[in-house]
Amino acid sequence: MKSLVCVKDFEAEAFDVLNKNARNYFKSGADDELTVRKNGEAFSRLLIRPRMLRDVSTRKLKKNILGKSIQFPVGVAPTAFQSLVHPTAEIESAKAAASTGTIFVLSTFSNWSIEDVGNAAPGGRKWFQLFPNTEKKITLDLITRAENAGFEAIVITLDAQNFGKKRDIMREPFKLPENLKMANFEKYQTSDKSAEDIGEFVHSTLAQDMTWDTISWIRSNTNLPVILKGILNPQDAALAVQHNVAGVWVSNHGGRQIDTAIPSIDALPDVVQAVGGKCEVYVDSGIRRGSDVFKALALGADMVFVGRPTIWGIAVCGENGAKRVLEILREELDLTMALSGVADVHDITLDHVQRKKSNAMSKL
Amino acid sequence: MKSLVCVKDFEAEAFDVLNKNARNYFKSGADDELTVRKNGEAFSRLLIRPRMLRDVSTRKLKKNILGKSIQFPVGVAPTAFQSLVHPTAEIESAKAAASTGTIFVLSTFSNWSIEDVGNAAPGGRKWFQLFPNTEKKITLDLITRAENAGFEAIVITLDAQNFGKKRDIMREPFKLPENLKMANFEKYQTSDKSAEDIGEFVHSTLAQDMTWDTISWIRSNTNLPVILKGILNPQDAALAVQHNVAGVWVSNHGGRQIDTAIPSIDALPDVVQAVGGKCEVYVDSGIRRGSDVFKALALGADMVFVGRPTIWGIAVCGENGAKRVLEILREELDLTMALSGVADVHDITLDHVQRKKSNAMSKL
Amino acid sequence: MKSLVCVKDFEAEAFDVLNKNARNYFKSGADDELTVRKNGEAFSRLLIRPRMLRDVSTRKLKKNILGKSIQFPVGVAPTAFQSLVHPTAEIESAKAAASTGTIFVLSTFSNWSIEDVGNAAPGGRKWFQLFPNTEKKITLDLITRAENAGFEAIVITLDAQNFGKKRDIMREPFKLPENLKMANFEKYQTSDKSAEDIGEFVHSTLAQDMTWDTISWIRSNTNLPVILKGILNPQDAALAVQHNVAGVWVSNHGGRQIDTAIPSIDALPDVVQAVGGKCEVYVDSGIRRGSDVFKALALGADMVFVGRPTIWGIAVCGENGAKRVLEILREELDLTMALSGVADVHDITLDHVQRKKSNAMSKL
Amino acid sequence: MKSLVCVKDFEAEAFDVLNKNARNYFKSGADDELTVRKNGEAFSRLLIRPRMLRDVSTRKLKKNILGKSIQFPVGVAPTAFQSLVHPTAEIESAKAAASTGTIFVLSTFSNWSIEDVGNAAPGGRKWFQLFPNTEKKITLDLITRAENAGFEAIVITLDAQNFGKKRDIMREPFKLPENLKMANFEKYQTSDKSAEDIGEFVHSTLAQDMTWDTISWIRSNTNLPVILKGILNPQDAALAVQHNVAGVWVSNHGGRQIDTAIPSIDALPDVVQAVGGKCEVYVDSGIRRGSDVFKALALGADMVFVGRPTIWGIAVCGENGAKRVLEILREELDLTMALSGVADVHDITLDHVQRKKSNAMSKL
Repeated sequence: MKSLVCVKDFEAEAFDVLNKNARNYFKSGADDELTVRKNGEAFSRLLIRPRMLRDVSTRKLKKNILGKSIQFPVGVAPTAFQSLVHPTAEIESAKAAASTGTIFVLSTFSNWSIEDVGNAAPGGRKWFQLFPNTEKKITLDLITRAENAGFEAIVITLDAQNFGKKRDIMREPFKLPENLKMANFEKYQTSDKSAEDIGEFVHSTLAQDMTWDTISWIRSNTNLPVILKGILNPQDAALAVQHNVAGVWVSNHGGRQIDTAIPSIDALPDVVQAVGGKCEVYVDSGIRRGSDVFKALALGADMVFVGRPTIWGIAVCGENGAKRVLEILREELDLTMALSGVADVHDITLDHVQRKKSNAMSKL
Repeated sequence: MKSLVCVKDFEAEAFDVLNKNARNYFKSGADDELTVRKNGEAFSRLLIRPRMLRDVSTRKLKKNILGKSIQFPVGVAPTAFQSLVHPTAEIESAKAAASTGTIFVLSTFSNWSIEDVGNAAPGGRKWFQLFPNTEKKITLDLITRAENAGFEAIVITLDAQNFGKKRDIMREPFKLPENLKMANFEKYQTSDKSAEDIGEFVHSTLAQDMTWDTISWIRSNTNLPVILKGILNPQDAALAVQHNVAGVWVSNHGGRQIDTAIPSIDALPDVVQAVGGKCEVYVDSGIRRGSDVFKALALGADMVFVGRPTIWGIAVCGENGAKRVLEILREELDLTMALSGVADVHDITLDHVQRKKSNAMSKL
Repeated sequence: MKSLVCVKDFEAEAFDVLNKNARNYFKSGADDELTVRKNGEAFSRLLIRPRMLRDVSTRKLKKNILGKSIQFPVGVAPTAFQSLVHPTAEIESAKAAASTGTIFVLSTFSNWSIEDVGNAAPGGRKWFQLFPNTEKKITLDLITRAENAGFEAIVITLDAQNFGKKRDIMREPFKLPENLKMANFEKYQTSDKSAEDIGEFVHSTLAQDMTWDTISWIRSNTNLPVILKGILNPQDAALAVQHNVAGVWVSNHGGRQIDTAIPSIDALPDVVQAVGGKCEVYVDSGIRRGSDVFKALALGADMVFVGRPTIWGIAVCGENGAKRVLEILREELDLTMALSGVADVHDITLDHVQRKKSNAMSKL
Repeated sequence: MKSLVCVKDFEAEAFDVLNKNARNYFKSGADDELTVRKNGEAFSRLLIRPRMLRDVSTRKLKKNILGKSIQFPVGVAPTAFQSLVHPTAEIESAKAAASTGTIFVLSTFSNWSIEDVGNAAPGGRKWFQLFPNTEKKITLDLITRAENAGFEAIVITLDAQNFGKKRDIMREPFKLPENLKMANFEKYQTSDKSAEDIGEFVHSTLAQDMTWDTISWIRSNTNLPVILKGILNPQDAALAVQHNVAGVWVSNHGGRQIDTAIPSIDALPDVVQAVGGKCEVYVDSGIRRGSDVFKALALGADMVFVGRPTIWGIAVCGENGAKRVLEILREELDLTMALSGVADVHDITLDHVQRKKSNAMSKL
């Protein structure tokens, strides 16, 4: 393995080892991919203003999320179809998260089932990402299975009941390899779904009529905490609090759904303000460096999640690759803290980020 | 036909199939083509902040324009000399608009006449774009012919009584092919105008002394609603309302007239404010994606028009090409609505677009 | 001659026909040439918001400058060493200005003398650019000679008593051709200055201790109106008014003196405000298009000047080239007026330029 | 030697003559090197608004720093491991600073010892950069040695107790040449440190638990003035004043520590405001031109320091190279002053820099 020292190195290496089909599926964004680009630029534009002469000889990255500890505040976001990059994909990701001490979120459209993943990483913290199904009984069954397999929370994806328009994939339609299966749905199907109509199948399962009532109904059918993923508008964040969710997950789906959607990190402060501390707030989309994590925390996120980065890790060398990606982010966050005068991850505040309006420069 | 999945694909394909003469004529902008570029960038800079958990299982894109229904709020803007790209150009465009259920606007300088187009697309909604003529009787006759041929509105172009300076065309003067004729003017000419002096002929027909009195005079000579195209300044929009027009069409002529003219979408909000709901407001220039349409509607436009996109469509494969371009924009608008939590096109509001000054980020 | 339709075309053609020495001398800016670039970008960033339905069938570009008429408000700025690009350089420039009906400004370091130029273009309006000399009697003699040769104003350059740092020229020192002579200084020299030490000679003539008293002293020694060229700071503009000058010329010397100096057009509004109509205001630096002229006038300039553009014109084909460059700017200004609804050059106002803070878009 | 007329020329030439190892070590920045780039861009964005008609025939660049005179306000910042580019590196740099009349700052991790440098440049002004050691007695001994060798101040580096993440160096680890030694530490070591573990050795000496008490303790153990280097946050600047330091040095370590740290020049005004004249303020990071020095002084710095520029100078031709780099910066500062109407370096004020909010343009 070449010397891969940052997430971008893993991305470049993954682009080399993956076939076009898999590469396109994971790297693509909607339309002109402006939000994919803006997601990263928005982080780069935020400037760090470090503090000096704090004792940072020992750093603490540990914190509690939904009442239980994680080793560092970077989790693995749900991504579908991981078998495109590795035969035992979700198994690898889940183990990588477990061994680094963070949270793994399993996609409804995983290639290994809820039960497989539950068994593979029994000690790790796992959340289940739920796409409410067109059939209510399937929705409920998925939740029950997640509960039984040791998953600790239900992450409802709000922003992907329709596929974003990924041009590369439309031009050269996505081919599903033989080994790719809708593992969580095998139980509900009589016949094997052929690879050709999987897109159609997936779409057919997605409840288009989801509303806040759907959230209430799900909450009334599980004791697991419910997290809403895909919120960008503070008004929705306020409604989420009213519906007693455990977490609001700020996301534009990595730029894969609406092109020119607001970058997640730019949407975060309003959401944090709207939530007012009444539930946890997470953020994903565009996080590629420890300093990005630092900024997300400074702006009020409780933790962040990464999607593509661990996919590139698995593509390069399975669990070890995903683990190394997570470690790189942990090490970079740790270093950013050390260099910014922050010994404890809880002490990363807005004070460490440039406040454009308050400095003397703005009077020039 | 290659897989053409977005308007840009049609543009690229049209560039391939057209000769330089035709390509230059339609793609060119004035001077350094900065407004051509800024038109697109202005849309890309506007960010969408979607709402979640609205029931978007059925979407409604239909709305009323000038009291009658259209299937979706994207119409075909008038463009001259369409025969440069297709022998039966305006016939194709008009049919494409009719078959998708939207409005076609015929240029005064069309290559097929008012009557030809009226006969070719009898069921479709058609407006007639009028350049007030140096001879008043021709102006009146054109209006009467439009009325008789089933056109429903008169769109007076305000911003093109002189040709914008398109350098490519000046360097390599525009050659008119044999088949290109000033169809609407054949009636008024004794001799055939040779291709060489068509530019001169066109210019000689354009009334340079047009004022608000011209608008009043036209209004007093027709029962058709009158729309003013080419307004960028809110003071003109206010005057338009005072002159009882039916619509104000915000346009910088696709960047073809004044280089560094304000992008149409940036001019829209002031115009909407000045109009105050007293007439309809349309916008063109730079619209290439469904999300652009979404933003124009969010900022207060009643509908949008596209010029070059359907030209590229016709260039690629006539009516079917133009139709596909319109469908792509409809599908992309529909998808943007679905992903933004908007079930009815009337419910696209400013709330879905980033408000820069009101978010917590601006305090950083 | 190729088809040269805009100033940029003349620039490109001049780059082709000139040797490196001459090209470098005229195109270079100071240091990293950031101000050269920013001068142009500042114009491109200003947006035009045209008015419609004004009668623009006849346009008037004529205006009075220092009490006498010019055909259009674009003059020829002083530039030294024009023989680098044409043997009878200043003669050509002066004739071009005269034949188009505008003002020609002769440099102190011209290669043809005050008297030569006076004789060559007797009917044209001419101003003399003065570098106050280290010897007061030479300063006074230059003024007297200008008065006698029919020059109508003294333009004192304030910003070039030292040479800006042009790296290309330092790396490959400027070689003066045989024919290049300091025509205005021949009278004051006993021996011929050799080409090698001309830079040194020029520098030795430049009064470094110039102050506002120098201006008062010059004013007391001539009845010609005095114009100050090189003002960028409104405080200096206010002082200029107190010293009863006839004109303030906003300029950063085309980016040739201080790199990262404020673009002239960005400095203009403050200067106009400080001057408060008590004298005329001119601007140069970065003007390459008629729309640039339009914007300068909208922001309060009485007229503009161009330096490099007419140099490129002379380089390409002498008087005819410079004349064509001036005509292009006149035609483009005329067209911008026509398309912006302005019939008279005096009616170009701030209302035609985008006001960023006042539009509804700014509330988004 | 080629014609090297600006700092960038020296940089390019040094890149040519250095091996990859040395080049990478000195040019690299942290992570994506965004702060390296932003450091320079922040200077380029600041615009100069010169004053005219001041008598600038003689300029004075001399000023007092810590009570003693320097010839011009550009000093040599501390950089470690200079033997990578020249065998007698710090000797050369120190002599260059001495012969141009400015301050040289010796790094704790120099390759020539405190005593060597003291002897080599006895007449020059020298400050000692201190990394507080994990062993207090070494810290104290280093201070005593600096006092004895004629160093006039202790510059405590605050921002580099951990190494910034330089990807190039991680991918191709830094190889130390034979001749490179930790000269100041030889006294404290029994065995020779091998080149391979020097990174480890360096890190082991860096006190990670440094706080404001460390500063108080150092101040109580020396009569030399104490300067804090690496401050970017005005709150730390205020604390520095409370701890009676002699100088606050605004720095992001040339972009080598935290990527996306605020550019030093953008952090300067807040720091100057917080310091309120109670101690001196210096700045480094991104200074490559005399106009950059001019701007730093305009924004309130008492002097500036350059790191990489003199390294490139030494790499090209030892003392003479570094001296030439310093002279270039002095000459460019002198020229910027002359062209901006400033005769004395003390008269460079905010008035010479663009005030964005106060000009008439901002109302457009």
